[in-house]
Amino acid sequence: MSFKNFKVVPKLIFGRGSFSQLDEVLAEERKSENDFVVYVVDKVHQGKELENRIPKKEQDLTLWVYVDEEEPTTKQVDELTNQVKAHSNNNPVSVVGIGGGSAMDLAKAVSLMLTNPGGSAKYQGWDLIQNPAVHHIGIPTVSGTGAEASRTAVLCGPERKLGLNSDYTVFDQIIMDPELIASVPTDQWFYTGMDCYIHCIESLEGTYLNEFSKAYGEKSLELCRQVFLEDHPEKDDKLMMASFMGGMSIAYSQVGACHAVSYGLGYVLGYHHGIGNCIAFDVLDEFYPEGVKEFRQMLKKHNVTLPKNICKDLPDETIQKMVKVAKSMGPLWHNVYGDGWEEKVTDEMLTELYRRI
Amino acid sequence: MSFKNFKVVPKLIFGRGSFSQLDEVLAEERKSENDFVVYVVDKVHQGKELENRIPKKEQDLTLWVYVDEEEPTTKQVDELTNQVKAHSNNNPVSVVGIGGGSAMDLAKAVSLMLTNPGGSAKYQGWDLIQNPAVHHIGIPTVSGTGAEASRTAVLCGPERKLGLNSDYTVFDQIIMDPELIASVPTDQWFYTGMDCYIHCIESLEGTYLNEFSKAYGEKSLELCRQVFLEDHPEKDDKLMMASFMGGMSIAYSQVGACHAVSYGLGYVLGYHHGIGNCIAFDVLDEFYPEGVKEFRQMLKKHNVTLPKNICKDLPDETIQKMVKVAKSMGPLWHNVYGDGWEEKVTDEMLTELYRRI
Repeated sequence: MSFKNFKVVPKLIFGRGSFSQLDEVLAEERKSENDFVVYVVDKVHQGKELENRIPKKEQDLTLWVYVDEEEPTTKQVDELTNQVKAHSNNNPVSVVGIGGGSAMDLAKAVSLMLTNPGGSAKYQGWDLIQNPAVHHIGIPTVSGTGAEASRTAVLCGPERKLGLNSDYTVFDQIIMDPELIASVPTDQWFYTGMDCYIHCIESLEGTYLNEFSKAYGEKSLELCRQVFLEDHPEKDDKLMMASFMGGMSIAYSQVGACHAVSYGLGYVLGYHHGIGNCIAFDVLDEFYPEGVKEFRQMLKKHNVTLPKNICKDLPDETIQKMVKVAKSMGPLWHNVYGDGWEEKVTDEMLTELYRRI
Repeated sequence: MSFKNFKVVPKLIFGRGSFSQLDEVLAEERKSENDFVVYVVDKVHQGKELENRIPKKEQDLTLWVYVDEEEPTTKQVDELTNQVKAHSNNNPVSVVGIGGGSAMDLAKAVSLMLTNPGGSAKYQGWDLIQNPAVHHIGIPTVSGTGAEASRTAVLCGPERKLGLNSDYTVFDQIIMDPELIASVPTDQWFYTGMDCYIHCIESLEGTYLNEFSKAYGEKSLELCRQVFLEDHPEKDDKLMMASFMGGMSIAYSQVGACHAVSYGLGYVLGYHHGIGNCIAFDVLDEFYPEGVKEFRQMLKKHNVTLPKNICKDLPDETIQKMVKVAKSMGPLWHNVYGDGWEEKVTDEMLTELYRRI
């Protein structure tokens, strides 16, 4: 296809308090008494108010996931999938991901691995998934990644960090309840929000841009400004929409230089996607001059200080590893430079960038 | 449900020239050699270039539809459905609507009536459809109605003009090719585009508004301004996105006073939706002062003159009929006034409005 046939989340609920409708939504999937649901939930909600609001039936299974210290891995996905298989000989009628991008990506990946044998590392790449996933629902409690709208589940595998990209990865349903993101700690709120801001800039400045991505990207960016510069009273609602629309924008275009550099940081040094993007973006003035300038205003307004001199004194071989990861992101660089990107994305250029981080 | 679980078109293609991918999209639906496709196409394309580009196989059926003189009717839907049934004992693997809002709505309605017995008038209303439709694809060749994104197919029935509103009505696929709208006659381009402008205003000024509808409505409105006030070089792409996003905006909110008044004009006097909306909007200064002002700038810029004094000398009983239709649009008035709308939407108020048209 010359133009992507873009698979979109087919059902969505938006509204303050709409989390309460999860029970009703799941009731449509539960056909018999033994039908069970799997909740993949960010550990941060354990023992908190949200745990009590999860409409868990006796036969259901909750998988609490740690996503604080490292990005989701293929190993983690396979272990979670095995836990579901140990719970029942049948598949669940739905897998519900509750949390930020990592928890939602884990839920997507588990729903795929329940119907596609052989372990998740086998499916890292594009359109390698053979069978439709188990019904899966995404409920963001941190906003910015766009994971709720995307056709990927980003995983660190034995060889590289790469998503399970497929139409089957897309959620069957999302519930966007702005009340859920009100209590996110400021740092995480900021870093994850900046993921949205940054991928909109990358999308809007990229060669892949069309009017579809542009309309979504521009609106998302405008909402980000209302949230992070104007401190708008409706900022939770706006950030949730910004994240969704940002996801829609990149789904039809592509991210760019910042994500490529950030992937290297994430894979080699373990930096989380959100903060990794911020650290990388801060040295990309030449790529995105206006965007980086505005980003620094946002940093300042929210008193966020980024770690500095992270790579300055690292051994050459560590830098080389990161350069290799960043360089392997072909489509991202194609989006940045258009055809002929291979000549522009040199080891020297990337080494110089990393050394400034 | 307190918040709508909004069914969205799950697959979409956007791009100049993407109409050529229709064959490839349909190939995924054709499983055996006898599988056939039904094309519901606006008669305006017959004998024109687009006809030759339709990927019609020998077993396929093309239904050319006149939608110039009147809005689609339940009778027309039932006749078209019978033509499909006469063509084969099996159902088609896809029904493809190519044209403006009317042609697309006819395609939606036929795809529904092939699996739901008893005639389309029976299903005018909300969620009366029992069975999933035949796979159906929407391809706009005129932009503005938002029919490509909506969960309704608006039909004039024996008793009233009312849509087949259901999740099953939503297209399974849309193809948005801005090249297709380049050759629309100016009047039609303008009136249909104003449908989009107007329902965004109604959505943004309504009591049903949330941040989802707002984000979509605001972006759609901005795109309309670029198209109709700035005459932007990418205006075809922009209008196509405005229409889609406008449709997304009202799907999660509601239209308002203009559509209610326009429904009366359409049902009793046969005015097409687009021009009917324009005529109605022009007397709604009290409801939408800023919007009506800007709309008149657009009229002026494009030298469009609206018919005047249409209702001035009509018999009282004709006016009463229109008032009755407009008044029956409860949800629209609820969106305008909120609770207690019944006391505000009086025969006197509506009669006075119509007399000024």
